[in-house]
Amino acid sequence: MKEVSYKDISLTSGFWKNRQDIIKNTTIRSVYDRFFDTGRVEAFEMKWKDGDDKMPHIFWDSDIAKWIEGVALFADITPENQEKIEHIIDLIEAGQEKSGYFNIFFTVVKPEERFTHRTEHELYCAGHLIEAAVAYYKQSGRDRFLKIMCKYADYIEKVFRFERSAAFTTPGHEEIELALVKLYSVTNEKRYLELAKFFIDERGKEIEHTYGGFVDGVYDQCFKPVREQETAEGHCVRACYLYSGMADIARIYGDEDLKRACEMIFDDIVNHKMYITGGIGSSHIGEAFTISYDLPNMRAYTETCAAIALAFFAHRMQLIENKKIYAEVIERVIYNGFLSGISLDGKSFFYENPLEIIPELRHKDVCVKHGERLPITERLEVFDCSCCPPNVIRFVAAIGENVYTYDENTVYVHQFMSSEADFDGRKVIQQTNYPADGKVTITYQGKPCRLAVRVPDFCEDIETEDGYIYFDVEDGMETELDFTMPVYFVESNPLVYENCGRIAVMRGPVVYCAEGKDNGKVLRDITLCTAGEIKEIPDECFGLPVLEIKAFRRKSKKQLYYKKTDEKEEFTAKLIPYYAFANRGESEMLVWLQ
Amino acid sequence: MKEVSYKDISLTSGFWKNRQDIIKNTTIRSVYDRFFDTGRVEAFEMKWKDGDDKMPHIFWDSDIAKWIEGVALFADITPENQEKIEHIIDLIEAGQEKSGYFNIFFTVVKPEERFTHRTEHELYCAGHLIEAAVAYYKQSGRDRFLKIMCKYADYIEKVFRFERSAAFTTPGHEEIELALVKLYSVTNEKRYLELAKFFIDERGKEIEHTYGGFVDGVYDQCFKPVREQETAEGHCVRACYLYSGMADIARIYGDEDLKRACEMIFDDIVNHKMYITGGIGSSHIGEAFTISYDLPNMRAYTETCAAIALAFFAHRMQLIENKKIYAEVIERVIYNGFLSGISLDGKSFFYENPLEIIPELRHKDVCVKHGERLPITERLEVFDCSCCPPNVIRFVAAIGENVYTYDENTVYVHQFMSSEADFDGRKVIQQTNYPADGKVTITYQGKPCRLAVRVPDFCEDIETEDGYIYFDVEDGMETELDFTMPVYFVESNPLVYENCGRIAVMRGPVVYCAEGKDNGKVLRDITLCTAGEIKEIPDECFGLPVLEIKAFRRKSKKQLYYKKTDEKEEFTAKLIPYYAFANRGESEMLVWLQ
Repeated sequence: MKEVSYKDISLTSGFWKNRQDIIKNTTIRSVYDRFFDTGRVEAFEMKWKDGDDKMPHIFWDSDIAKWIEGVALFADITPENQEKIEHIIDLIEAGQEKSGYFNIFFTVVKPEERFTHRTEHELYCAGHLIEAAVAYYKQSGRDRFLKIMCKYADYIEKVFRFERSAAFTTPGHEEIELALVKLYSVTNEKRYLELAKFFIDERGKEIEHTYGGFVDGVYDQCFKPVREQETAEGHCVRACYLYSGMADIARIYGDEDLKRACEMIFDDIVNHKMYITGGIGSSHIGEAFTISYDLPNMRAYTETCAAIALAFFAHRMQLIENKKIYAEVIERVIYNGFLSGISLDGKSFFYENPLEIIPELRHKDVCVKHGERLPITERLEVFDCSCCPPNVIRFVAAIGENVYTYDENTVYVHQFMSSEADFDGRKVIQQTNYPADGKVTITYQGKPCRLAVRVPDFCEDIETEDGYIYFDVEDGMETELDFTMPVYFVESNPLVYENCGRIAVMRGPVVYCAEGKDNGKVLRDITLCTAGEIKEIPDECFGLPVLEIKAFRRKSKKQLYYKKTDEKEEFTAKLIPYYAFANRGESEMLVWLQ
Repeated sequence: MKEVSYKDISLTSGFWKNRQDIIKNTTIRSVYDRFFDTGRVEAFEMKWKDGDDKMPHIFWDSDIAKWIEGVALFADITPENQEKIEHIIDLIEAGQEKSGYFNIFFTVVKPEERFTHRTEHELYCAGHLIEAAVAYYKQSGRDRFLKIMCKYADYIEKVFRFERSAAFTTPGHEEIELALVKLYSVTNEKRYLELAKFFIDERGKEIEHTYGGFVDGVYDQCFKPVREQETAEGHCVRACYLYSGMADIARIYGDEDLKRACEMIFDDIVNHKMYITGGIGSSHIGEAFTISYDLPNMRAYTETCAAIALAFFAHRMQLIENKKIYAEVIERVIYNGFLSGISLDGKSFFYENPLEIIPELRHKDVCVKHGERLPITERLEVFDCSCCPPNVIRFVAAIGENVYTYDENTVYVHQFMSSEADFDGRKVIQQTNYPADGKVTITYQGKPCRLAVRVPDFCEDIETEDGYIYFDVEDGMETELDFTMPVYFVESNPLVYENCGRIAVMRGPVVYCAEGKDNGKVLRDITLCTAGEIKEIPDECFGLPVLEIKAFRRKSKKQLYYKKTDEKEEFTAKLIPYYAFANRGESEMLVWLQ
């Protein structure tokens, strides 16, 4: 399977073009400004001294790197952003040591402790800087940043692979693996690919790290050699960045053992550890996967970055071998647990994306810092640990890369976005309002081939081969599809104890939720009438219709306990797309209703 | 209202006599042995030195004191126990300082820091020693221990009330207030009563203590003067011991403001903060009440001691003014959230009594010590903090004191236990198998009076005046009652978000639960058929019948999410009394079923 790069596809209108415009017009600037305010840009000047405020954090490098990458993934870099990027590159160039080493924290805060703290994101920062340099080079053609990062990568190769002089063998926070694969892809220098493979091959040969409370080596996926790993474990972002790198190496080297491990891990996530929103990470403790079917809604960690990382993993699996599940997972992520991470106005972000909010419980006298931790209830413009905001930028910028893959005879259509794609001498134009409705028109230009179009799982009536329908197309042919966009009720596996007796409402690929703003308090007491009519009310604000469903709730009582009655009040429940929750102030929120 | 002391009533057969026998035959010895093993007895020798193991804990004094009290509350102290008690009194006598001061920790560990650490249980230990001395004196007539404790109480009065030379004004852990009232009751020394009142009056005049994460003064009920407090707040055991002392003082002094505060606080507990089991304490953080309607089942703290303390509070409220709710709460506590605290064999204990257990969640790789704290799933014989086991002993020993109260014209029958009571020149004999069945025969001997018998809330068909039915009785008359003992379904207030869509099963006063042992995994997925027949299967082991109810569960699936189906499997759910859970090994457990 071959990739249709983000560079070869441009979105032209519709749901994702709108998001890209918000990112371009608002988010890029807003995130930069917050990063500037908090000292992240200034940190690159390497002037911080003991006693100064705004001490550089161990992964501020990566925050800025992801911002640069996000800007560079768009075709049109504004002069203003170009200037900001060039300024930062100036600082990186000035700050890079002769050896090639570059890291803010380990230059100005703890210069004596380089490559001794496996957990402290040194190679993770290097990875993100590499990704930024690659993206900037691909978009602008300017290679100054790329050369700087090649030099750093060469130094890392020397220290880790040849000298083995670092205090650890593999990174505590994975990310550099997939970055090195990208560096290889633009430089054609095989040593970068081999360094990526080295980090993957070495991982888990010994347990390099123990994180309190976790089984040894689980937190950062070094509990056994990666080819023997069969389950998704530990810190979700680390895990899925690693799995992405593994999938890259499996594909490029045709490594069947690695492919098999990736497949088993992917299945484990999808069948046991993923929220209906595509979110992953059941616990804030270690920001980690826990055990199968443990998917608490209110305490969900479900970091925005973890959703992104899962999409990266799925996308890379799709490049190894086409299976519909990969596109389904990407679709689940992008319309739900990823998209909730950014406000409708593009300015503020959730780090965690819970599936239930009861504001009173967060504000109760017992303070969260002492253990009963719940996610925040309103988005913020910046966090102390602000990895998610720039990750959202770069993910939306490149979201088009999820639309197609192809091989010699077939062009696979995985996602539905109005767009124009040019690749391999063909041109594919999609016109659609998906997921507002299910009509998709695909215009094909190029040599005759087979068009394989994914039929979303919710379209149960369409007969498919392995989830795709196939059309033989020739130059200039137009293929029209009309998927239904049903509203339907979903239940989860009985083993998911949190959701027993509860259902979620979906419309096409979009998970819906109830908010207190529309439905009053104690959303858990609402019983939806699954037999009645469901009204779709157009809504400008959320971009998709609001749903009105007949529902019941119990009458209020004074007593705490009383003999069961069947007294219920009927009312009309109003559900909004999950991704749009908490855009109207703090409110109770619930996905899984009775 | 006058009290019928535990000394004036003896249980003759049935449910509670059986429990008393288990306590006498097994628990007293077992708890002593564990206390001996762990160094608690030896600690009274005051020989511990820095560097020794088994460093005395700040409230080991109270552990042993409660054990002594428990033994002494039974009419028949065995020679062996008498000897143990006398030995400990020898040690206390030897260890008491000339001033009257006695405390192990602040003699051998931190002698320089006496009366400087408000939170470290110094006055709490004093209180329990006083209670023990009072009970031992009342049972044995020996006054040596009592005199020791009077001397200590005198010293406390001097330091706290007259000199005000301690570093704090009121105890960080309340308990001494109610103990001093007891000391007054046997000595008739009014200064002990006044010292109790002093501690209550002074409390909350200023915020003496802040516990991290709590609003200032909330944790230990000093956030405002007690007469202005209207809600139950903070650490539950501290709170209810305080409220008990407040109720004592309100009654004895006829203090209307204090009575009103007690009533409001009691209402707040009963209407907003009490589990269906009578357990209190929604959070392990501060072992505390949280906000109204926040009653999580799996994370319930619901300490055994807190259930006991709530019964103490209710009993004392009942002595101020008879309201049925007090007896109802006591009944709810004794058959459920208190009784679950001890194993059926009398040897092991729960500190916390959750309403739901999923063992896998406790054992998941993410260790509990890092925040996701869940209660233990099997009872233990002793804890590091082992306040509950001896508290169970003393509570069961004196449980008869909850059966009657009386005033000039009326004898109130609050609880149903086969027993003989002698008080105020009357004799009242109860014969009943309650709660196995609802038949109660009351034989009255004495001057003519009115007998007021509480009709349990679950007997809805019987007409009552304020919850009691009245009989005019004369000497020798037998009154027969036949309460139904129905199995019924209970729902909780819609605001209790944890229980929305869920019901509990009760049989008379006894809450039932499902265990994995009988019903397989994922109890949350069980839907009870509330319309069908319910079979009562006699059971020797649990002491009350097991219930068999037609139920449904969903079929197992491979996928994590799928369109709602109505596929269900019928099976027979088996429910056991809640108090008997976890007596057959670790198992899933659930009270609130669908």
